[in-house]
Amino acid sequence: MIKVTVWNEYGEKQKREEVAKVYPAGIHAAIAEFLDKEKDIEVKTSTLQDDERGLSQALLDGTDVLIYWAHCYHDKVSFEDSARVVDAVNRGMGVIFLHSAHKAKPFTGLLGTSGYLEWREAAEKERLFVTEPGHEIAAGLPLHFEIEHEEMYGEPFDIPNPEATVFIGWYKGGNVFRSGVCYTRGRGRVFYFQPGHETYGNYYLPNIQRVIVNAVRWASPRTHASERNSCPNVAPLEEI
Amino acid sequence: MIKVTVWNEYGEKQKREEVAKVYPAGIHAAIAEFLDKEKDIEVKTSTLQDDERGLSQALLDGTDVLIYWAHCYHDKVSFEDSARVVDAVNRGMGVIFLHSAHKAKPFTGLLGTSGYLEWREAAEKERLFVTEPGHEIAAGLPLHFEIEHEEMYGEPFDIPNPEATVFIGWYKGGNVFRSGVCYTRGRGRVFYFQPGHETYGNYYLPNIQRVIVNAVRWASPRTHASERNSCPNVAPLEEI
Amino acid sequence: MIKVTVWNEYGEKQKREEVAKVYPAGIHAAIAEFLDKEKDIEVKTSTLQDDERGLSQALLDGTDVLIYWAHCYHDKVSFEDSARVVDAVNRGMGVIFLHSAHKAKPFTGLLGTSGYLEWREAAEKERLFVTEPGHEIAAGLPLHFEIEHEEMYGEPFDIPNPEATVFIGWYKGGNVFRSGVCYTRGRGRVFYFQPGHETYGNYYLPNIQRVIVNAVRWASPRTHASERNSCPNVAPLEEI
Amino acid sequence: MIKVTVWNEYGEKQKREEVAKVYPAGIHAAIAEFLDKEKDIEVKTSTLQDDERGLSQALLDGTDVLIYWAHCYHDKVSFEDSARVVDAVNRGMGVIFLHSAHKAKPFTGLLGTSGYLEWREAAEKERLFVTEPGHEIAAGLPLHFEIEHEEMYGEPFDIPNPEATVFIGWYKGGNVFRSGVCYTRGRGRVFYFQPGHETYGNYYLPNIQRVIVNAVRWASPRTHASERNSCPNVAPLEEI
Repeated sequence: MIKVTVWNEYGEKQKREEVAKVYPAGIHAAIAEFLDKEKDIEVKTSTLQDDERGLSQALLDGTDVLIYWAHCYHDKVSFEDSARVVDAVNRGMGVIFLHSAHKAKPFTGLLGTSGYLEWREAAEKERLFVTEPGHEIAAGLPLHFEIEHEEMYGEPFDIPNPEATVFIGWYKGGNVFRSGVCYTRGRGRVFYFQPGHETYGNYYLPNIQRVIVNAVRWASPRTHASERNSCPNVAPLEEI
Repeated sequence: MIKVTVWNEYGEKQKREEVAKVYPAGIHAAIAEFLDKEKDIEVKTSTLQDDERGLSQALLDGTDVLIYWAHCYHDKVSFEDSARVVDAVNRGMGVIFLHSAHKAKPFTGLLGTSGYLEWREAAEKERLFVTEPGHEIAAGLPLHFEIEHEEMYGEPFDIPNPEATVFIGWYKGGNVFRSGVCYTRGRGRVFYFQPGHETYGNYYLPNIQRVIVNAVRWASPRTHASERNSCPNVAPLEEI
Repeated sequence: MIKVTVWNEYGEKQKREEVAKVYPAGIHAAIAEFLDKEKDIEVKTSTLQDDERGLSQALLDGTDVLIYWAHCYHDKVSFEDSARVVDAVNRGMGVIFLHSAHKAKPFTGLLGTSGYLEWREAAEKERLFVTEPGHEIAAGLPLHFEIEHEEMYGEPFDIPNPEATVFIGWYKGGNVFRSGVCYTRGRGRVFYFQPGHETYGNYYLPNIQRVIVNAVRWASPRTHASERNSCPNVAPLEEI
Repeated sequence: MIKVTVWNEYGEKQKREEVAKVYPAGIHAAIAEFLDKEKDIEVKTSTLQDDERGLSQALLDGTDVLIYWAHCYHDKVSFEDSARVVDAVNRGMGVIFLHSAHKAKPFTGLLGTSGYLEWREAAEKERLFVTEPGHEIAAGLPLHFEIEHEEMYGEPFDIPNPEATVFIGWYKGGNVFRSGVCYTRGRGRVFYFQPGHETYGNYYLPNIQRVIVNAVRWASPRTHASERNSCPNVAPLEEI
């Protein structure tokens, strides 16, 4: 079983009417719901209002893959909170950052870049192209598929050169975006996925759910060679 | 001085009226013309009709950066011809593949992939986005610029994960493409650039010329640590 | 079941007494023997003496992962033979190159570099360090392990920057080597592993066998998004 | 002129007799001294005792390349201090981390990994191999060179897969290490270089100085395409 925690900031702005109408129990609940149908996945949720901003050491220790949605309250997560997430990933936990998490501290802390991008909230069409058709995260998807209404996120996107760019998005309004990108950090895997503006309901779309399920499996911890030590002082292996 | 050779297949199909009307002396001549205006660049041209398909050892030995345009005659360049180009790159020569060179033997021989892509010849608009604004090849360019008429090349593009993706293209007809990508092979640098269909005249556009000039400088050989040997049998450096 | 084909040149030089004493039925037979014990692996062998140098289209079409050992007869494999292997990898077949395959045509054809390195045949000690402890190919291994006698392969090794460097080797005689490196080419995965000189019997070592078994699983084809077409001419997705 | 700032923690532990005997005015002064001889480099120094831990916004704004040596006082540099360095790199400043800076906050903040490694202080021999002979940082160096006494840093080194591994170190005591590695973060370049224990005087060695001078030139800001904005809200480029 892959133990997934879906984290959502879920502050006041995520509870206002126009969001609640789309995601009555929050985006985290909607994501947990479709993940829960997968036989190899066990899911719980967490929010900014929980202990230690919902990112406590105990919670991270019991998580194989963390899904992270955030937008308005990045500053409520401290550098120390973020450092716990980064350390968990370095030890093997997978993490999936969704949409506006591009400026979340754990995202920029794992990537080392600003996450800056251009944006436009115009409910325009996005078409996602699979650029790595052999990648696990693209399994079962058509070579391109559409989202009728999405917030535009456009290049340049300030991220390190991805280890794999699985999706590139085309926008009706004339922009492009690296919409699905992969990284390894220590023993853990990181995936960023662009779709998911809070008022458009795209987490109900089958293709989007397929991407997230695939990404959970891809990011789940791989078998480890051995325990990790901090910085051990070691004896010589040969005569000096 | 950077010694550039512009290679063009320039067979019968590249001399027919609708091409000649746009590039009267061939695409190679048009590219050579704007490169020749740069004070640090010295340029010559070569075609399939020259000695050893215009890719002789002597020519490669005297070339710092090879620019390669091809479309209809990939099969006229043999595996042996291609191997000379690959070896020259491995020893430090830069190479810039343009447009339909995505299926040229030296391109697939350096990248190890098929170069497959989707295409459409519909004179549609392409908008190029700079995705790595700090990259040398993007120097002096706006963050995005348009080409009024270009052949569409679309994802998935079968290439290894690029070392840098400098440009991504948006097409009016609904597709996207990694239009400018960088690789290192041995001591040499490789750049692929999408624009350049033979009947649209895009090599006359200032932004396109700027990209190619920048790429020539980027791909020109860097100072080497030492001479390269084949596979030397070496003595131990320590007592065994 | 993962269908593995172990290919060995197995020419006269690989049948001479000092090799036959170590690998009586050839290196391919020794590798096939330990792979055959794995429940998820089905194995066959092939050599240069078989149809189309043992690399026929039919054989490749029925192979999930190809293991390739070669040393003295690289020139017997033609560019056309090699192109079939490269194409099979691009379509999803995994490939594991062992030891002196660093100059085999399919290896250089997939990587685009010369594969040059320094070498010394002095039966010296190599110690392999795991540099990516979270990688699937390192699963179940200690963080470092020794091989009592191995041919030294030393840096600089002319390969593209690896997508993952899983092992780095230390040699008693004073050299180092990137002994285990990973690449993706199209939909297929490529692994190169240094140990395996024909007169030292290292394919009988449990740790070496563990690496190869792990690599077979890692390189086995992943689920694909869809069928691959060559270069399809496609209709617009939006009004132009 | 490339404006270099050499930053050294230079706390009490770096002023004690056994260090002062080797670097009377501190490691920063020794590095500044040889850099100052280069005609294209203008150098100043800074330490933990200066304003805002010697990493003020004003200082970073006037720096093209920051050289960073630290060991005992990583915790004196706050997350906020580190964030200023990361942001400066994202905007184009180069940074060179030396030796024990592998656990400095700006290093782990740019890379997103722990920087963990194995170590041994035994004044043993290290031999550095050039693994990318065409790389600018290897210019003018032999393919391998020795350091008589260095602290051993050994694999596994918890860093993301490097964009280039320019040096790998061999240690007499039986270990290996990726001793010189490169990254891009935003518009800036990052280089880590292993040698430099404070009691061995290796910054006086010509080859080590050559590496650092080369790295300063490589990491100096490249021409930028345009100004960087934070996250601009942009108008459509096409009719939606």
